Amino acid sequence: MDNALKKTVLRLFTYGLYAATTKQGDDVGVMTVNWLTQCSFDPPLLALAVEADSHSRQVIEASGTFALNLYESGQRELAGSLGRTFRKHPEKITEVAWQPGPATGSPLLENALGWVECKVTSSLPTGDHILFVAEVVEAGLNREGVPLTLKETGFKYAG
Amino acid sequence: MDNALKKTVLRLFTYGLYAATTKQGDDVGVMTVNWLTQCSFDPPLLALAVEADSHSRQVIEASGTFALNLYESGQRELAGSLGRTFRKHPEKITEVAWQPGPATGSPLLENALGWVECKVTSSLPTGDHILFVAEVVEAGLNREGVPLTLKETGFKYAG
Repeated sequence: MDNALKKTVLRLFTYGLYAATTKQGDDVGVMTVNWLTQCSFDPPLLALAVEADSHSRQVIEASGTFALNLYESGQRELAGSLGRTFRKHPEKITEVAWQPGPATGSPLLENALGWVECKVTSSLPTGDHILFVAEVVEAGLNREGVPLTLKETGFKYAG
Repeated sequence: MDNALKKTVLRLFTYGLYAATTKQGDDVGVMTVNWLTQCSFDPPLLALAVEADSHSRQVIEASGTFALNLYESGQRELAGSLGRTFRKHPEKITEVAWQPGPATGSPLLENALGWVECKVTSSLPTGDHILFVAEVVEAGLNREGVPLTLKETGFKYAG
């Protein structure tokens, strides 16, 4: 396989951008993610791939829950800021306004377009990531708007 | 949970559109899919959710392989045509030009923008779908172009 060509083709795949958040006690995780998809209507399930060595992975495993907050078109800077590594920027969650979700306590960002709260039902190690399958247990919409896409940002998390 | 609100929020999630193809002997599966995501850089892995009762699910399990063909912007009609059920339209693959992929034999559509061939590494039942995790083993680009998105088509496969 031509690895440069593989990267080119995989970067043509279409993604949205979301803030994945999770909370266990005082330990709060937040990261910008695009590797996710719905994977069942009934029950409503999502699959989310999280970096295997990330702080958020540890908090998701401890809490068994996470939320996905939809960024809005124009929120590239916010997505980039929350996409910085926890190791270098453990304070990043304090830079945004949020409140705990009603079903899971996962942070819901006030500036997001909308959100879903999820409870993990299973997980599968997938190379340098771990894939969490989770049931959507609560949802909310903060306002009407157009969702942010990976393409709009110019970020390159694929390949 | 308010199910109508849950559906509204999940339909804001961003998806591309792809023809997933698979072949085992003379048994050929093709379907239009949007529930997929990359889930590892190294090795390069994808996760694809396939309807549990679909013909393609059976062929993917028999062959252990599939290809994802990227639709191009403007190919809404093609995506809709290949999205019809195999039960009612078992001949649908004969309506498009294709050749078997070099690594897996999965059909590569001549009209697609590009493609990846994948070998299944694991699978997980997820409600009314099954989630296949697969390694990208070959890739190709037929031409430059803009990928088709679920949003462009107005199709509603989410919620």
